[in-house]
Amino acid sequence: MSRRGERPTPETLATLPVAVDAMGGDKAPGEIVEGARRAADQHGIGIVLVGPPDQVGDTQGLELVACTEVIGMDEDPAGGVRRKKDSSLVRAAELVRDGKACAMVSAGNTGATMAAALLRMGRLPGVVRPCIATPLPRLGRTPAVLVDAGANAECTAAMLVQFAQMAAAYVSARFDTASPTVGLLSIGEEPTKGTPLVKETHGLLVEAAGHGFEFVGNLEGRDLLPSPTDVIVTDGFTGNVTLKSLEGSLRFLFDTMLAIFGTDDATRDAAQVLLPHLLPLAAEFEPENTGGAMLLGTDGVCVISHGSSNATAMMNAVLVAHECATRGLADHVAAAVRPAQSD
Amino acid sequence: MSRRGERPTPETLATLPVAVDAMGGDKAPGEIVEGARRAADQHGIGIVLVGPPDQVGDTQGLELVACTEVIGMDEDPAGGVRRKKDSSLVRAAELVRDGKACAMVSAGNTGATMAAALLRMGRLPGVVRPCIATPLPRLGRTPAVLVDAGANAECTAAMLVQFAQMAAAYVSARFDTASPTVGLLSIGEEPTKGTPLVKETHGLLVEAAGHGFEFVGNLEGRDLLPSPTDVIVTDGFTGNVTLKSLEGSLRFLFDTMLAIFGTDDATRDAAQVLLPHLLPLAAEFEPENTGGAMLLGTDGVCVISHGSSNATAMMNAVLVAHECATRGLADHVAAAVRPAQSD
Repeated sequence: MSRRGERPTPETLATLPVAVDAMGGDKAPGEIVEGARRAADQHGIGIVLVGPPDQVGDTQGLELVACTEVIGMDEDPAGGVRRKKDSSLVRAAELVRDGKACAMVSAGNTGATMAAALLRMGRLPGVVRPCIATPLPRLGRTPAVLVDAGANAECTAAMLVQFAQMAAAYVSARFDTASPTVGLLSIGEEPTKGTPLVKETHGLLVEAAGHGFEFVGNLEGRDLLPSPTDVIVTDGFTGNVTLKSLEGSLRFLFDTMLAIFGTDDATRDAAQVLLPHLLPLAAEFEPENTGGAMLLGTDGVCVISHGSSNATAMMNAVLVAHECATRGLADHVAAAVRPAQSD
Repeated sequence: MSRRGERPTPETLATLPVAVDAMGGDKAPGEIVEGARRAADQHGIGIVLVGPPDQVGDTQGLELVACTEVIGMDEDPAGGVRRKKDSSLVRAAELVRDGKACAMVSAGNTGATMAAALLRMGRLPGVVRPCIATPLPRLGRTPAVLVDAGANAECTAAMLVQFAQMAAAYVSARFDTASPTVGLLSIGEEPTKGTPLVKETHGLLVEAAGHGFEFVGNLEGRDLLPSPTDVIVTDGFTGNVTLKSLEGSLRFLFDTMLAIFGTDDATRDAAQVLLPHLLPLAAEFEPENTGGAMLLGTDGVCVISHGSSNATAMMNAVLVAHECATRGLADHVAAAVRPAQSD
């Protein structure tokens, strides 16, 4: 069960600020505070920064909830959350738990963000394990969402089915997609391909389909860009390796292209012609534009931004967090996992 | 133990032809036979085609070992090999087993190729399970090799250690790399990150290192292009998903670039300037130039080419097969797994 009593209604949530971990990320606090201020100034989003005042410095006029500790990027997540009860991450999660913020956002230690959200907000009723949903671009369309992007290195088939249900609820709430399609990442299209975990999950997804999502069967790694389905389900180990592989290969090719462009005057001129066409493509693959990854299954909205987040990335993460909170994401996710419990 | 008695010496193998499954692959037999003929004409490699004469048609002057059956691309691998004892794949593997060919090459059904090689050539002494090693380009350097690319969806830590040993032996034999470096694919650099399988494998690799390879620790998905290590070890499920993800993302970006190039006269002119720089890059990522994947652990050399192989891909696969056979790959692989058995 939830650690809180009643979840705030979407109407109440819409009046609450977004709690921003001012000390999370490689570019904290400067770019983080700047991004939060832009969300406030340009989009009218309420913001409450969380961090030690002497480390945060200039809050650019934003409200600051003071705390005394920071959990480092490389610190042991569970230990950090347990020991540093007055850290920016733990305090941000408590603001959501206590109905003082509609959502939290951090570009800090991913594991510690998850742990703080899980321990302070609690799990939604029926959720076995929260998972991380990461957007995958589909040029000109709403992004697909891959779960689990790394919260759970080891999974059961029942967990993977819940990930599918929660991700489908997220896609519906965020992009207004009716009955999102779900694909299961495997090593062949046939239901007989893959590990025993994948084969068992395939069977359970066939049974669970029709309640909030459609199951289209297995996908392969080569299907991910662009994904034919709205949701791609996999365990957190495979998901993390796959996402980082995609990220690495795209960065590698972009870097190689840039090097070619700089070869001589002729290539520099050619690049000028092509750049207007290439930039929108690059923008779709820029993590800063996607609004970050969403933690699903906690009793409150938590956006986990890329550690390299700049001000633009943070602004977009705040917008996504606010929109999902006011659209009642937690309620939708809770409703999505309920049928599996009562069947 | 091996199903054969003495393995032929490299000197004997150098006198033997490469057995080519004339009916394997999307472009069989036309491009397959053409590629084999080019290997013979341009590089003086002995070739023996295997296939039903009426289906192979024009052998372009190459020797043909006649058989009556073909295992289809989508046919059940184990069942196909069991039922079709006179198929081109089974007969090709028998030519290697019987000392009539130095190696076999097929662009056909991957699972059936593995099964035919395993059942007819047999495993090398001490090998728990054969694995597939696939090259990953490193611009301007010898490629890295990822094992297992999909032969074993489920692995034990002992299997992964053998994959590392066999892949290191392969890299040494093919590229003359002394004591290749090995990285373990995981979701963080720290030895504590990953699944129990990965953590156990990490410990075993630390112990096994120094005998034929150096272990540098964990790699992440974003490290694969270009890989900092000569060998990347992972289970066949993760390896297959990862390789297909890389393949898909690169193809996606190349296709998108080509579409941009064709936008109008200005972009077409710009493309003309850039193409001389881009083509060498594209060539490095073209599966047809890498010579295909190598099956490791069988008592004989077996190259598994991409199903889409054209004549160039097949020619390169034949060259790699012949070179690895005459360099005594099977002996090197057998020697690499031996220390683990006797420790």
